[in-house]
Amino acid sequence: MIGGGFGGVFTAKELARKGRDQFDIELVNNNNYFVFQPLLPEVAASTIHSSDAVVPLRQLLRRVQIRQAEIMGIDFARKLVIVVQGFRRLPVELPYDELVIALGMSVDLKRFPGLPEHALTMKNLADAHRLRTHVISCLEMADVASDAEIKQQLLTFVVVGAGFSGVETVAEVNELIRRALKYYPNITQDEIRVLLVEYADRILPTFPTDLAEYATRRLRMHGIEVRTGVGTKAAASTAVELTDGSVVPTRTIVATIGNGPNPLVEALGLDMHWGRIKTDRCMAVPGHEGVWAVGDAAEIPLVERPGEEPAHYAPPTAQFAVREGRQLAHNLIAKHVGKPLKPFAYTSKGSLASLGMSKAVAEVYGVKLSGTLAWLLWRGFYLSFLPGFATKLRVLVNWVLNLFVPPNIVLVESSRPSTRYIHYRKGDKVLEPGMVIDGFYTVVKGALKLTIDNPQTGEHFEKLFGPGDHFGERVLLKSALRTGLVVALEDSVVLWISQKDFTRLARAFPFLESYFADYIEKTFGGPEKGFAPGSADRAAELETLP
Amino acid sequence: MIGGGFGGVFTAKELARKGRDQFDIELVNNNNYFVFQPLLPEVAASTIHSSDAVVPLRQLLRRVQIRQAEIMGIDFARKLVIVVQGFRRLPVELPYDELVIALGMSVDLKRFPGLPEHALTMKNLADAHRLRTHVISCLEMADVASDAEIKQQLLTFVVVGAGFSGVETVAEVNELIRRALKYYPNITQDEIRVLLVEYADRILPTFPTDLAEYATRRLRMHGIEVRTGVGTKAAASTAVELTDGSVVPTRTIVATIGNGPNPLVEALGLDMHWGRIKTDRCMAVPGHEGVWAVGDAAEIPLVERPGEEPAHYAPPTAQFAVREGRQLAHNLIAKHVGKPLKPFAYTSKGSLASLGMSKAVAEVYGVKLSGTLAWLLWRGFYLSFLPGFATKLRVLVNWVLNLFVPPNIVLVESSRPSTRYIHYRKGDKVLEPGMVIDGFYTVVKGALKLTIDNPQTGEHFEKLFGPGDHFGERVLLKSALRTGLVVALEDSVVLWISQKDFTRLARAFPFLESYFADYIEKTFGGPEKGFAPGSADRAAELETLP
Repeated sequence: MIGGGFGGVFTAKELARKGRDQFDIELVNNNNYFVFQPLLPEVAASTIHSSDAVVPLRQLLRRVQIRQAEIMGIDFARKLVIVVQGFRRLPVELPYDELVIALGMSVDLKRFPGLPEHALTMKNLADAHRLRTHVISCLEMADVASDAEIKQQLLTFVVVGAGFSGVETVAEVNELIRRALKYYPNITQDEIRVLLVEYADRILPTFPTDLAEYATRRLRMHGIEVRTGVGTKAAASTAVELTDGSVVPTRTIVATIGNGPNPLVEALGLDMHWGRIKTDRCMAVPGHEGVWAVGDAAEIPLVERPGEEPAHYAPPTAQFAVREGRQLAHNLIAKHVGKPLKPFAYTSKGSLASLGMSKAVAEVYGVKLSGTLAWLLWRGFYLSFLPGFATKLRVLVNWVLNLFVPPNIVLVESSRPSTRYIHYRKGDKVLEPGMVIDGFYTVVKGALKLTIDNPQTGEHFEKLFGPGDHFGERVLLKSALRTGLVVALEDSVVLWISQKDFTRLARAFPFLESYFADYIEKTFGGPEKGFAPGSADRAAELETLP
Repeated sequence: MIGGGFGGVFTAKELARKGRDQFDIELVNNNNYFVFQPLLPEVAASTIHSSDAVVPLRQLLRRVQIRQAEIMGIDFARKLVIVVQGFRRLPVELPYDELVIALGMSVDLKRFPGLPEHALTMKNLADAHRLRTHVISCLEMADVASDAEIKQQLLTFVVVGAGFSGVETVAEVNELIRRALKYYPNITQDEIRVLLVEYADRILPTFPTDLAEYATRRLRMHGIEVRTGVGTKAAASTAVELTDGSVVPTRTIVATIGNGPNPLVEALGLDMHWGRIKTDRCMAVPGHEGVWAVGDAAEIPLVERPGEEPAHYAPPTAQFAVREGRQLAHNLIAKHVGKPLKPFAYTSKGSLASLGMSKAVAEVYGVKLSGTLAWLLWRGFYLSFLPGFATKLRVLVNWVLNLFVPPNIVLVESSRPSTRYIHYRKGDKVLEPGMVIDGFYTVVKGALKLTIDNPQTGEHFEKLFGPGDHFGERVLLKSALRTGLVVALEDSVVLWISQKDFTRLARAFPFLESYFADYIEKTFGGPEKGFAPGSADRAAELETLP
């Protein structure tokens, strides 16, 4: 099995259980744990600990060999999976008789300029972590913000997409923020703006209309703006632009839209449809002996008429992936013992969605429920599904405690990336006079203008930047450097690299260091011209070379 | 108060409690939480959740204004603390009447070549996290390692320094590893090597000799090698060298030694002694009206004879910092109302150290305890100290569960740094033939040699690298690049930058891109020469430009 989501794990589990000692089963995954995806919004909202939303694969699959490795490719002709692992990063070839591709789907936001760079996603544990950290740091900054415009951006939270994941995420994040405010004396409830934006004309498309309407009313009652019939057009570091032309100033965009093929799956050269691998009804990949696909990565026809394209496919949900995995395990055993394979068939037993504040909507075996009862059902269902007594108990304790104690607002530092692309809208200030610069900027797209005015000397300096131009190189000289004003003259993209990494590179690489020394001399007439030196220098100057 | 450790927090807490509405109290810290330092080894060992070893400052100090910000400096003349905060990074000046410096100490390993770059530390929450992640990833890699030498390095864990922190860390990490092995079928108990290295001739110097001897026996019984009278000399990515000349091949070095001044404190220009700010017995900083120091950052004399250097100072422990903070709060109030200040005086009430496996040593009010009873006392003491019923309950549940369930081995990805310095020992292989390269290397120190042999063409290529030279630049061209052999000819240091960040920089910066194109053409005669292309290419090629 390659991939450790619902599809891969339940195939392996059932195969180990039913197939016993007939098979050597190995599961390769880039993480050593299985993510219980429906609980990710609760992780983002601090309701449960991150490690309780995941289970180590080794614990879940005791009779399966687990390999944490990066998959490089598959050699179908030689029946090999090629992985890299460990410090040495030597490629390892894993031979297979039967290969189950269970790599899921990826998030693809490329259609929306700026969204890939500025949206947070909700696919894995790191995403949930990042969202939680980001929301709390917005509250921390807003509590001490002196600029009203920035405070408004910091306190506006936009969730794009109102499927299951979008609704639960917006509900949980809203609850976290509203309940955390008691600790932020300088922020009031009415300064908080939480938006749910959905391109379709209703939320929760898989639910009956009346439940979706109930959910909409509930979310609004909790202070969430629900906007349907409007999508995202573009995003930048300070705002999101919607399809109706409105611009929402914000520092937080969560995208739960844009499913795309896993890049690795895409590169396999298999027959694909809407980013998923075409399989037959038994989940075999046609034309490749011993290759199967399962879960979100697979497009499994539910009915098939000879000569026609199938009309219905198994939907990409956890509920289906679990059943597909079990069925696939049976087919693998059947193939091994020479029995006929069984086509996959399953009907959804219903849906559950949490709306926060102890409310939910549920449709189970055709019965509709909403409110607190649905919420208890929702919690009970997931609790029963969680593997391991210890995890169940910990999650239960946290759920009960959460009813009485305020949310955990500990802001655990997640290391910032060393480089990132930043989108600016025309008129955005990239740097403001007096700001303490913390990186080096290269223009990728657009045009920007630097202006330095020194009130003491009356000196005025201007410079235009286009693609390939750079600014901030003087961070090399002094860490407490104060900047001039840099404004985007049009919609622009810059590549930012942290001061620490930029300085390390320039120092290690004599060729770069001399280039910047020349450039600074030529452009500014020496390191000290134009810039007002800081009144207090930062303690941490250049790090000692090893 | 600047600094949110024991000293700063307990000053603020007592001042808010006793001083009531007489003061505007603000605490500035770079994190929004207080770390309960004694529980960090338990976080590293997965025994308790990381968020249960910390408390949000806003929750702990309800009547105190909390500001999460980076401190840039102090202007003593104008009575201002200068901080940067938020996205805009504009400096903010915070005026003060009374300033309490509670910034603690930092780790300073510069005396040991390679140790700053290759040792893990145990100062804050991120450190504990990193150690846990690192240990589990060593087990994951060792479980699938095919090379015996590498497997041995991966399964050797060295803790340097056998004070309180070193002993608890080695004990907890050892317990985590030993108990986790049931999930790693390809690793046996006797392949695990855990070392505790201490320069002094005994461990736990603050404990009575017989308790330290008991602790040594216990640790050895649990499978830990305890080596006293030997210190660290140097470290590299594959080994640590000890003062007795022995070299221990390992991928894990934890340093609990090397306290140094906080760089910010050092830059203040105050009178320092052994990296701590000299204060009088009332914790005031002489010569600076309204400036006080407390906790590890302060050197507070316990007795003072006129005209002589004081002989005894308050030791840098949490126990003392708590008492110092309370005393300082009283002195601040006394100063405000014109009453005389009281010198700090306190005698240690004892010490507790956990030895793992439900054993501990304790000395409380002169009574010595060891074994399970001491361990229960240790747990009870910390439980009583933890603030908040919810945290107490969660920690208790986890402690009880931990007796019955195996440790949590979920490996939560922590993002890897984009640049790092790597030390190699003479003879170390930096790159091996066929390895999938993931970064660009620049030589900072030493000498290395590249050899490429192409068995198909019989071609042989050699190149020497010295400081300023670089290799791996061809990752720009192809992500699945396989390398030649690069060996360190002497002890060397390289700067590594990740492929992703290097590629982003080179693409954004035309000047760099053309330099490397020329270099590759000139050196290798074109991109394809010499290197065997990978049999399978990685799916993820160049990222789409925004």
